[in-house]
Amino acid sequence: MATPPIKFGILGCADIARKVSRAIILSPNSTLYAVGSRSVEKAAKFAKENGFPETAKVYGSYDAVLDDPDVDAVYIPLPTSLHIKWAVLAAQKKKHLLLEKPVALNVGELDAILEACESSGVQIMDATMWMHHPRTAKMREFLSDNSMFGELKTMHSCFTFAANKDFLENDIRVKPDLDALGALGDVGWYCTRSILWAADFELPKSVLALRGTVFNSSGVILACSASLLWEDGKTATFHCSFLSNLTMDVTVVGTNGTLHFHDFVIPFEERNASFSTSVKSGFAELVTGWEPKPSQHTVTTELPQEALMVTEFSRLVGGIKFGNAKPEKKWPMLSRKTQLVLDAVKASIERGYETVEVMN
Amino acid sequence: MATPPIKFGILGCADIARKVSRAIILSPNSTLYAVGSRSVEKAAKFAKENGFPETAKVYGSYDAVLDDPDVDAVYIPLPTSLHIKWAVLAAQKKKHLLLEKPVALNVGELDAILEACESSGVQIMDATMWMHHPRTAKMREFLSDNSMFGELKTMHSCFTFAANKDFLENDIRVKPDLDALGALGDVGWYCTRSILWAADFELPKSVLALRGTVFNSSGVILACSASLLWEDGKTATFHCSFLSNLTMDVTVVGTNGTLHFHDFVIPFEERNASFSTSVKSGFAELVTGWEPKPSQHTVTTELPQEALMVTEFSRLVGGIKFGNAKPEKKWPMLSRKTQLVLDAVKASIERGYETVEVMN
Repeated sequence: MATPPIKFGILGCADIARKVSRAIILSPNSTLYAVGSRSVEKAAKFAKENGFPETAKVYGSYDAVLDDPDVDAVYIPLPTSLHIKWAVLAAQKKKHLLLEKPVALNVGELDAILEACESSGVQIMDATMWMHHPRTAKMREFLSDNSMFGELKTMHSCFTFAANKDFLENDIRVKPDLDALGALGDVGWYCTRSILWAADFELPKSVLALRGTVFNSSGVILACSASLLWEDGKTATFHCSFLSNLTMDVTVVGTNGTLHFHDFVIPFEERNASFSTSVKSGFAELVTGWEPKPSQHTVTTELPQEALMVTEFSRLVGGIKFGNAKPEKKWPMLSRKTQLVLDAVKASIERGYETVEVMN
Repeated sequence: MATPPIKFGILGCADIARKVSRAIILSPNSTLYAVGSRSVEKAAKFAKENGFPETAKVYGSYDAVLDDPDVDAVYIPLPTSLHIKWAVLAAQKKKHLLLEKPVALNVGELDAILEACESSGVQIMDATMWMHHPRTAKMREFLSDNSMFGELKTMHSCFTFAANKDFLENDIRVKPDLDALGALGDVGWYCTRSILWAADFELPKSVLALRGTVFNSSGVILACSASLLWEDGKTATFHCSFLSNLTMDVTVVGTNGTLHFHDFVIPFEERNASFSTSVKSGFAELVTGWEPKPSQHTVTTELPQEALMVTEFSRLVGGIKFGNAKPEKKWPMLSRKTQLVLDAVKASIERGYETVEVMN
């Protein structure tokens, strides 16, 4: 017998919450139940514009959402500096947590959140949507196939977009008191995650930020690069920026194969996502061409990746609420490893581009 | 009235000389005239197997090629450590020089070669074939278009191939006395050139090799990475290796546009080469896709890039031989800048991954 849908409360009316509201509507095991904002009018407007049912609760505070006993789970798209307060409080009030990235300003704050979740027995998952696209699973198959891909050797990821003047002046992601990690926490989160994903979540042993970091006048990172080195000699580099044309590359190179995709965070199209692979590539006679050439693969999805994310989250929450399941530890582990690497990049920049060991 | 074709002599019977022999045959203003090897039998076999005319001269030494007064130009595919001797000697004997890359073991040696060319008034060009593909010119147009591409911000290049056991044991490119620069001089040459090309040949102010260099037991580089930084804040990274599946990426990101190509040194196909551009990329409503999406461009060429290289070289040589032209200084300048950056990467590795200033 199907269990009832998981009831979501949303904290705040961030832009990204519009997309996730649609995802909750699209998700078969989830429902929009409540939204809270510091202004009840804003919350009401948000609910009306984003397909909330007539019966949805509209609250003038985040606390009210957390105090509603019918809310199963909260989606938290608040500025990163507020995560520690509201994520811990939500967990204490036994709400399962779908938490926007970056999950925290540093791993210390994240650990406080994770401890609160653990002691309340609630699920936490960060909102890294592309992890849930079926393309990601398909590419993982390729990377895990030793005869196709072989041993992982090097990775590169680049996520940039050209923020406009308004963003660079006013967005929370350029404000030291709101999203102090700037481009590193925003686009750099995705680069870091993609590299860890390609490395099957083995942490690098050390991280070096590369000279050339761009800061705004408040000291927030607008663009930076880093290189990562693993115990076994694997390497990776990434570049993230608010100052360059939209680019979203991941390249993963192994001894036998190569994987490329150029829309890793947001696929070019919602229903179809592609990637290219090459396997044991060589040259034609006289090196006048490639044999074999790379191949293109397209993966179709009925539900957008964010709806698949919500569905997976609600499945886990449902297992806890209606069954005997325990929270899935994989998701907080992925959040934590990503944060650890971000912290190391930040530390490397702050220490004048010294190599920083990554401590688990 | 058309001038007679430029008469080429080839020094040695390297594998790559087979490809360039074909290119000389395909080039309308060039002809295969002589080949010299330390073994006259080897030279005769090479001439026979590679379409040399019956009348071609077959010599049992490199000196004999240089002493033949009818040889206009020599193609030198010898191991890098021999360039200084044979390129200088060839220039002194008034032979124009098509010189394989890496052009020298270091910029000091290259400068000796360039001085010999200058004082003899001969043309020198390195054999970086992809520079001559019409795709390269088409992509340059894109990068130079401020409204399409904007200001250059960051670049990444990766050239790797999976050398087999025989290569890793016996190829000249893993021998400290032959091609001491190893993967850096071979595949890294191309990465460096592609980055300089994208930067319109502005030299970076500093270079940092990244930890993780792989050496063979003789201390020759089999894989390495580096990061480059320019005065204006532009950045680049590259990775080159003999130990990973064939991969040939160049990504160039500007404020307005992005350029990708994945077969920069050897196009997938001989007659058609593609690249992808995106311009002022943004997202669809709710960030569910890209608007506009990147576009693919294909450039067709009748002659392969190496034949276009030979044709351009012979055009310059013809201008000197039959006209009043002076050697074109652009080509040695590009060789020298590429070598300067390679030298800086090597110095950075040798100094324990210190940042190295690039001195012109």
